[in-house]
Amino acid sequence: MEKFFNPQSVAVVGVSDNPVNLAQGIVANLLKFGFQGKILPVGPRGGAIFGLPIFPRLEDLPQVVDLATILTPAKVVPQVVETCGRLGINRVVVESAGFSELDDTGRAMEEEIRALLHRYRMRLVGPNGLGLINMETGLALPFASLAPPPRKGHIAIISQSGGVGSHLFAWMAQEGLGLSKFLSLGNRLDVAENEVLAYFLEDPASQAVYLYLEGLRNGRELMSVARRANKPIYLHAPNVGAETAVIAHSHTASLATDERVLEAACRQSGMLPIKRQTEFMNAAKLVGQPPVKGPRVVVLSRTGGEAVVTAYACRQWGFQLPPLSPSLAELLRQRSRAGIIQPTNPIDLGDIFDFAVYEEIVAAVCRDPEVDAILLNYGPMAEFEMERGREMARKCVEQARAAQKPVAVTVLITLEEEEYFRETLGVPVFHFPEEAVEALAASRYLAARVELAAEETPPLFDVEKIASTIPQGLGFLPLPQALSLVGTLGLAVAPWGAAATAEEAAAVAAGLGYPVCLKLAAASLVHKTEAGAVLLDLADADDVTVAFARLAQIARESLPTGEDWQVVVMAQVSGGLEVLLGARRDPAFGPVLACGAGGVGTEVLEDVSLRVAPVDPAQARELIAATRTGKMLAGIRGQAPADLEVLSRALVTLSQFMLQFPQIQEVDLNPVRAFPGKPGLLALDARIRVG
Amino acid sequence: MEKFFNPQSVAVVGVSDNPVNLAQGIVANLLKFGFQGKILPVGPRGGAIFGLPIFPRLEDLPQVVDLATILTPAKVVPQVVETCGRLGINRVVVESAGFSELDDTGRAMEEEIRALLHRYRMRLVGPNGLGLINMETGLALPFASLAPPPRKGHIAIISQSGGVGSHLFAWMAQEGLGLSKFLSLGNRLDVAENEVLAYFLEDPASQAVYLYLEGLRNGRELMSVARRANKPIYLHAPNVGAETAVIAHSHTASLATDERVLEAACRQSGMLPIKRQTEFMNAAKLVGQPPVKGPRVVVLSRTGGEAVVTAYACRQWGFQLPPLSPSLAELLRQRSRAGIIQPTNPIDLGDIFDFAVYEEIVAAVCRDPEVDAILLNYGPMAEFEMERGREMARKCVEQARAAQKPVAVTVLITLEEEEYFRETLGVPVFHFPEEAVEALAASRYLAARVELAAEETPPLFDVEKIASTIPQGLGFLPLPQALSLVGTLGLAVAPWGAAATAEEAAAVAAGLGYPVCLKLAAASLVHKTEAGAVLLDLADADDVTVAFARLAQIARESLPTGEDWQVVVMAQVSGGLEVLLGARRDPAFGPVLACGAGGVGTEVLEDVSLRVAPVDPAQARELIAATRTGKMLAGIRGQAPADLEVLSRALVTLSQFMLQFPQIQEVDLNPVRAFPGKPGLLALDARIRVG
Repeated sequence: MEKFFNPQSVAVVGVSDNPVNLAQGIVANLLKFGFQGKILPVGPRGGAIFGLPIFPRLEDLPQVVDLATILTPAKVVPQVVETCGRLGINRVVVESAGFSELDDTGRAMEEEIRALLHRYRMRLVGPNGLGLINMETGLALPFASLAPPPRKGHIAIISQSGGVGSHLFAWMAQEGLGLSKFLSLGNRLDVAENEVLAYFLEDPASQAVYLYLEGLRNGRELMSVARRANKPIYLHAPNVGAETAVIAHSHTASLATDERVLEAACRQSGMLPIKRQTEFMNAAKLVGQPPVKGPRVVVLSRTGGEAVVTAYACRQWGFQLPPLSPSLAELLRQRSRAGIIQPTNPIDLGDIFDFAVYEEIVAAVCRDPEVDAILLNYGPMAEFEMERGREMARKCVEQARAAQKPVAVTVLITLEEEEYFRETLGVPVFHFPEEAVEALAASRYLAARVELAAEETPPLFDVEKIASTIPQGLGFLPLPQALSLVGTLGLAVAPWGAAATAEEAAAVAAGLGYPVCLKLAAASLVHKTEAGAVLLDLADADDVTVAFARLAQIARESLPTGEDWQVVVMAQVSGGLEVLLGARRDPAFGPVLACGAGGVGTEVLEDVSLRVAPVDPAQARELIAATRTGKMLAGIRGQAPADLEVLSRALVTLSQFMLQFPQIQEVDLNPVRAFPGKPGLLALDARIRVG
Repeated sequence: MEKFFNPQSVAVVGVSDNPVNLAQGIVANLLKFGFQGKILPVGPRGGAIFGLPIFPRLEDLPQVVDLATILTPAKVVPQVVETCGRLGINRVVVESAGFSELDDTGRAMEEEIRALLHRYRMRLVGPNGLGLINMETGLALPFASLAPPPRKGHIAIISQSGGVGSHLFAWMAQEGLGLSKFLSLGNRLDVAENEVLAYFLEDPASQAVYLYLEGLRNGRELMSVARRANKPIYLHAPNVGAETAVIAHSHTASLATDERVLEAACRQSGMLPIKRQTEFMNAAKLVGQPPVKGPRVVVLSRTGGEAVVTAYACRQWGFQLPPLSPSLAELLRQRSRAGIIQPTNPIDLGDIFDFAVYEEIVAAVCRDPEVDAILLNYGPMAEFEMERGREMARKCVEQARAAQKPVAVTVLITLEEEEYFRETLGVPVFHFPEEAVEALAASRYLAARVELAAEETPPLFDVEKIASTIPQGLGFLPLPQALSLVGTLGLAVAPWGAAATAEEAAAVAAGLGYPVCLKLAAASLVHKTEAGAVLLDLADADDVTVAFARLAQIARESLPTGEDWQVVVMAQVSGGLEVLLGARRDPAFGPVLACGAGGVGTEVLEDVSLRVAPVDPAQARELIAATRTGKMLAGIRGQAPADLEVLSRALVTLSQFMLQFPQIQEVDLNPVRAFPGKPGLLALDARIRVG
């Protein structure tokens, strides 16, 4: 990476003096950003651009450059890369489009280039991107005109889309936020996000990293890089859901959208998931401020209305407005002109025109160890307040800085004062208090201690026995095999037996004891309930005989001709709460566990929480507790709690099962009945997919 | 109102030439905004300000002014108002603070002023506000310096807080949005929101109204005004929780509103509820555009990344991206340079440098009747595209205008082009596509047809019989009385009887048939389940005897000494789904109905929908359908639906009951069991509060 960001000489391949030539935009940017190294334009027609000679071929260059940037038609790129390799140029940036994102020819060209990279031991950024920027050296490789250009600052951007990245740093410049380095990943033929992220996390010029991805190359590695970070990471991945939605085959998969996996992964590894670009814009304003370590905020507002608006936003974002300390309340009572100010939090300073009082109040708030952050809504109401107001603001900011309290400011009344606060005082300035509160919430999220990855614990089941049980074939296991496998994993299953005839079914039922239920089991029948293939509350042998006949009819009418089927007879379990326990393999993050509302509730209540495996018992308990179903399981309104120990052990078992057997794509135990007494849970259904 | 907004002469009371005098800010604003009428400063020290003489007393004015604006210490305001009355000045605006928002003295002064208004037939805006503005005449009464000043335009603002209103119109000016009229309500001693709103809805200069309130004076009237509106109304009422209540009270003497009731009222009357000021800022940009009549959006984007970001936002906000029409897809295939563009929606135009193709695409999209709105992310990538890009944009905007399609633009790459789009083309311009989508969603919400208020239908119960049943006392009805009342209303209650001794209880149980449950009934015992005072699954007389003894013990230990208690014996009902049916009286909106998850689910699932009464049967069905519980009641995964007819009739009954009997504060039937068969529902518990 270092060689990409700090070259001494750069060749720009694809330049001509035609005014509609795009590659000349790269040369223009290098000049505009003041790149101090050598700039060497290359293009077959030769000539000159911006006073620099255009070399017809790479071979004509007077030196071996550190880096070549290529913006030619896609079809000549492999040849240019090869030439670079031959000449010893081992860092190339390709901005041309028309590769794997387009068609098979493009994919083939990428393969060709990959082979060249290997042969010549080269590294490549792109193709189909905007290159990279290093604001410290003026290295600016995007071909697009950047208006406004980025400001120099401390936020690094990695963006799969050059457009999103450059839109953001343009707006950052408008808002006084500076860029340190930028890299546009494009198709990630070679250089991908995790390597760049790791580099930026070590980069002294970067204090935070924004990551825009349309697909995650290796989510588990990303989590591991993020866990080690001591800088904020903002992860914006708006295409994760759509991209992988097709993979969802069954209920669990479709409900547990990939977006929710992403959120779980972020939570587990301490990255802030970004859903809107403005969220990042707001959060980024607090980079460099002390972290918000807790929920207790004091609001000081020049107008009562914005105090109300701010308090509302605090509630929305989970902040508390604790009562003022007795000494502060007393100070307010003493200093208030004509008693018009109330000693409340938020503090409405609307009627205080003596700025020395502001200073006293802020000093007192800064001294208060029970305050985690300060929100200040301020603006001078009249011309005569301007100067003294600035002095007050400066003193307040100094106090807060000395006390290591994060401060977020919204400028009211005289919006022009924003600039003074931002540029001269260097405090985060927001247009509206809600944005300030959102930013504090982001800081608080990032300040939370990231848990360690779960340690892998000894398997709770007999690995060899399970290995011999899993069939070789692909697809869903037949229900009897799935139920057996669950039992072998050590999870309790409601008593059951398989039957091929009505007589067998009645015999099994008699053995289990009535009432029972009957389920049709066939490989192609994934949604049994919807097909009417689960018959409940069968009270005697006659019921069972009728039910069997019904299932046989469904099998004849609905299953593909010739498909094998069986009937599972299961003891009818009453009581307890219906729960879903499941796991599936996410393309980016690998095994993911799910827990929440089971039965019909799975679909309707959408109350499922997720966690990237592995989980240890404590994390499994958190996973259970994170849902409304979990609150019910914990026992409410005097009801006995379910056996959370057994449930969490079941989740750890599923976690180990998925990690141990990579061929298992999905396990869905739904419903599981969870009880206060032994055995704590009984699985009533099981779907297991091998792939 | 007309006289407030169009005076020919304005007295400003409280002016001096002292540089820290606040009232002189009013004179400064009138001059700065170019008020064409007469400006007559009044202040006891006389002198002159900005070249205008200051009259020592109102009596010294050379004429009877149309309007007096007062900014003096609170204590002299009543006297100034009286002088105005005596002199025939019948419109006054009071900006001074220190009235009911402060203390009892302030409240008493308001009463005094109220009497004066009545005596002299005057009207008053304020006190404790920023006055009002009419951008057409330059009438600008705020004392605060407004920097930047508002732009002239078509959005009217009513704000209880002067600060919030002026912060918004300052930001509107920054974003190219104009103000028509502004009124700061302050303490609403006389003029309140509904009157001003009705006036603005008729005002030809105003195309939309933003309403900021810290408390609603008359929510039902507001709904009725809003229902008749043919302009967008944005309602921002953040004073909905404990955090804001204290400060809002001291700020404008307002009581907190229930946020969920507010949302229901907005939905019922077609107002857009605003939770963040930026939401309004975004929504306001679409004022003047054709309404968004449906969910189908076409996205055209200059960069692929922002296309993905936009598509994600569309999904978040409930928009669809339908496939392109066959002819449009064909056009894209034909026009695409080197086939790099895919005929998908969103359309990634990244590789099209021929702007004639943009024009063709937009023309085709505009012709498509299956498209409800267009999102355009555009910016020139290089200097040479600038001019031709502008021409293309102009043509596209003309096409859309002719086709009456709403368009929202996000300017990419060259942010400076925002100004051209906004000022020259007059299209809504957003900083980020997510903001554009949010605005389209707001427009779509507002374009939805507002339902008519429910017609009042003949009571479903015997009004006189019910009237004689309701006791005179205040507080919760004893359980037996509450259950009887529910039965008399025509709602089925599970079979029950009251008992004072264990023997009576056993006799009642025998009559009902086992199993039964026992409930302790006492006025002070509101949460029976939590107190352990509901005993279920009693199978025989022995169980009942033991249970009665247990309840008697609880009564002895937990109830206030001497309080009467009884035991209710109720048939134990199994099956069905637990539902809550309820109603309560909201301080702002009157009777509100509630329906959703019952039993322990009420607390944990938080799945309750609300509606301001009255409701008719169709609206009651919508109310039921709005929750997840409603989806379960409708029958999912092959289960039989509950009797929705009976449930909706029950809600209509509660609606009529609340409207008919204003002394009823609250009815809470929880749980009600809802079944597929007759009687459709059985109430298992009832709480009724008379107040």
